[in-house]
Amino acid sequence: MSDIGVTVKKNEAFSEWYTEVVVKSGLADYAPIKGCMIIREHAYAIWEKIQGIINKKIQATGHLNVYFPMFIPEGFLKKEAEHFEGFTPEVAWVTHGGDSPLEEKLAVRPTSETIMYATFAKWIRSWRDLPIKINQWCNIVRWETKATKLFLRTREFLWQEGHTAHATSEEAEKEVLYILGEYRDLMENYLAIPVLVGLKSDSEKFAGALYTMTLEAMMPDGKALQMGTSHNLGQNFAKVFDIKFVGEDEKDHQVWQTSWGVTTRLIGAVVMVHGDDKGLVLPPKVAPIQVVIVPIPYKGADAEAISSKAKEVAAKLQARGISVVLDERAEYTPGWKFNQWELKGVPLRIEIGPRDLKQQQVTIARRDTGQKIAVKEEEIFATVEKLFEDIQNNLFEKAKVALAEKTFTVQNYEEFKRIVAEIGGFLKVAWCGSSECETKIKDETGATIRVRPLENEKPTVTCIRCGQKAKEMVFFARSY
Amino acid sequence: MSDIGVTVKKNEAFSEWYTEVVVKSGLADYAPIKGCMIIREHAYAIWEKIQGIINKKIQATGHLNVYFPMFIPEGFLKKEAEHFEGFTPEVAWVTHGGDSPLEEKLAVRPTSETIMYATFAKWIRSWRDLPIKINQWCNIVRWETKATKLFLRTREFLWQEGHTAHATSEEAEKEVLYILGEYRDLMENYLAIPVLVGLKSDSEKFAGALYTMTLEAMMPDGKALQMGTSHNLGQNFAKVFDIKFVGEDEKDHQVWQTSWGVTTRLIGAVVMVHGDDKGLVLPPKVAPIQVVIVPIPYKGADAEAISSKAKEVAAKLQARGISVVLDERAEYTPGWKFNQWELKGVPLRIEIGPRDLKQQQVTIARRDTGQKIAVKEEEIFATVEKLFEDIQNNLFEKAKVALAEKTFTVQNYEEFKRIVAEIGGFLKVAWCGSSECETKIKDETGATIRVRPLENEKPTVTCIRCGQKAKEMVFFARSY
Repeated sequence: MSDIGVTVKKNEAFSEWYTEVVVKSGLADYAPIKGCMIIREHAYAIWEKIQGIINKKIQATGHLNVYFPMFIPEGFLKKEAEHFEGFTPEVAWVTHGGDSPLEEKLAVRPTSETIMYATFAKWIRSWRDLPIKINQWCNIVRWETKATKLFLRTREFLWQEGHTAHATSEEAEKEVLYILGEYRDLMENYLAIPVLVGLKSDSEKFAGALYTMTLEAMMPDGKALQMGTSHNLGQNFAKVFDIKFVGEDEKDHQVWQTSWGVTTRLIGAVVMVHGDDKGLVLPPKVAPIQVVIVPIPYKGADAEAISSKAKEVAAKLQARGISVVLDERAEYTPGWKFNQWELKGVPLRIEIGPRDLKQQQVTIARRDTGQKIAVKEEEIFATVEKLFEDIQNNLFEKAKVALAEKTFTVQNYEEFKRIVAEIGGFLKVAWCGSSECETKIKDETGATIRVRPLENEKPTVTCIRCGQKAKEMVFFARSY
Repeated sequence: MSDIGVTVKKNEAFSEWYTEVVVKSGLADYAPIKGCMIIREHAYAIWEKIQGIINKKIQATGHLNVYFPMFIPEGFLKKEAEHFEGFTPEVAWVTHGGDSPLEEKLAVRPTSETIMYATFAKWIRSWRDLPIKINQWCNIVRWETKATKLFLRTREFLWQEGHTAHATSEEAEKEVLYILGEYRDLMENYLAIPVLVGLKSDSEKFAGALYTMTLEAMMPDGKALQMGTSHNLGQNFAKVFDIKFVGEDEKDHQVWQTSWGVTTRLIGAVVMVHGDDKGLVLPPKVAPIQVVIVPIPYKGADAEAISSKAKEVAAKLQARGISVVLDERAEYTPGWKFNQWELKGVPLRIEIGPRDLKQQQVTIARRDTGQKIAVKEEEIFATVEKLFEDIQNNLFEKAKVALAEKTFTVQNYEEFKRIVAEIGGFLKVAWCGSSECETKIKDETGATIRVRPLENEKPTVTCIRCGQKAKEMVFFARSY
């Protein structure tokens, strides 16, 4: 845990920079087993913040947290053909309990639709039992074969998965959009990451869904990152698991369903979007430590008075609900401490030195801009609050500018290929709607349709690939 | 979800009663896969309460939450021989990822010592890196072959596992006792369940530990339930995983370690100890819903005034941090609602009828005693607070009486066998200290040593089994 400090520059070697920041800031570490990661205390605390934000949102609208078994019999996965095909290539299979082979092998859940909906069929009898709106926080396994990338591509990760069943198609559609809106609020107003929002194409939708809504962000290396999805499952699962209810009309009906989730990859997105050459930069709303106080005794004089002032400031901020660390470790210099807390992305640092003490002030340094200001003691709390807001806004505005700079409207396929190869980013193009063109573009450039925007802008030009009549404008990108 | 109401009596058919209460109150359900359970919303909310209590305790003393992978290579488990022998018979093995067989099979974690400590060896270099004090909330798998019992015996369950590494043996011992004290506080002062606290015998200790401290409660059917354990691992794992540090003396040392955990079985204990023929009885400190308000419109008159009064009372209690449900469902009668909320164990019910309205009062009913009192509007909050305290104390006192009634000091082995067979309970006996006697007693009666109490009471009689000189007084019981 010794060599701190990031040794590569974000704009020179992005991928190495990312891994260094993640590991050195104490967010995560490689596990001593291939393809897996250790989520360390700093990242887990961010995850707990995200849990708190989502729980508050969904509980206010009647969703309840539960926990279903992580083992799914092969037969369940097989019931919905598309679903089985989509997930089995990356399933980890349990075949033995102790020394005994199992009668039927068990999947470690890649997602929980099947095990939950087999149970919904038992729970739901009448329209009075609807809607069912549940959510679970759990671990998920997808047996990735590509290179491991901390938070973004690991064989096990953490997520929440919401699952609902409704009496009508309209209610299910409303739920899908409601969740999309809440996810967008989380991403933009808490994580400070702007997202493009819309539909997935059929080839990119969730295996077994009617349609998938997605939220996509742009990373500094020009690759898109899927931040969350909200699926309308229609009656696909209701049919195969026979989830019926007696309606108010006293007839049998099948339910309409949704599922939706976000994962620990959100933490990776925060690192990539906001981090800089000094390390993490955390938005105040999800920073586990919001303020660090570093007393700076000058040649030992005033040390005691400075220490008691620092304690007083810490206590005052904590009493107002701000998360504060007072760093009085004697074995490290103030400069070393500054670097360490900058690496960890703490939004504000308060320094208290002899000069501050004399003038009844403190010095506050912003992590995002590096700016330092002197603040009178009686104004500390109000200033901290104000700076939190400023930092939160500044990070979001900067990310919006970065997104705009990496969004291109393109009408010519040669230019499309050049931009994908040289810059990356989102490429807004006219598309004929055929999966044939979609596949060709993917094969030729590596870019896929990330989003079909909700607002249906009519194309004024022909399909970027085939030149036929275009049906809609879509965003292509290479992605994580 | 229709037939509510418990159909068997607790003191007539305890085991059936337990399952009915668990399933009908919405705590849990059998999963559509053998040996597993679904933790439903009501139980998950209690678990979240327990998480909050433990997190607050351990975070105040510098423990940090993390998340380690759930897959453990077989080679890791094998490193500590006792540990491997203790856990492998009940390990679920992952042997395939997708279609490909794995090079080394992976255990789904039965506990995380090995994967964590392989990493500790990498993290720890100097005394400055110590202590490490981490905790994780996760799922655990132990491939039980005995009959499933919801919360108490399932192949997957949830728990927290704390893991620490220290520079000295004394620090590790202190940690083990600190955790034991906090667990006792949780069990007695929140769950209202009295526990016997002490050491496990060598044959019952954690596989790989130096010694295990345990907290044991008595269930109404005379069986003991292990509520939590805190292990001193000594240097057993440090040796096999080579966890060394350079001390202040600049020499190499091996760390001293502890691990400790409680599981979702605590919820089963709450059901068993406090439940009655009407269903669950929840201690106010861990009840997800603390108060239910049921307006009782009499033939429709005053219905509106009663409803707005009910909303007002609900809002006032919520503003003070009390968790309230206002049950205004029109499709159910007040009587039906009373039964449902009693089944769910809500500590207090507030009824507001026409008479209450007229007299500016409400009627409050206690779940634990059934007692009803009229309370003036301005005294509602103070009364609710007071009643919470009374219920919490009453449940604990009743449980203490039940424990005392099922604790026997026995000097004669024939009497011992009779009590174990006919009553169960804790049997306090003199023991010579040999595992031979311990094993014989287990084979002959099914009872094992549950606790070797901390306060070392000197035996005045000879060993209950062999008649030789006794070393200590211990508590035997049959157990879950």
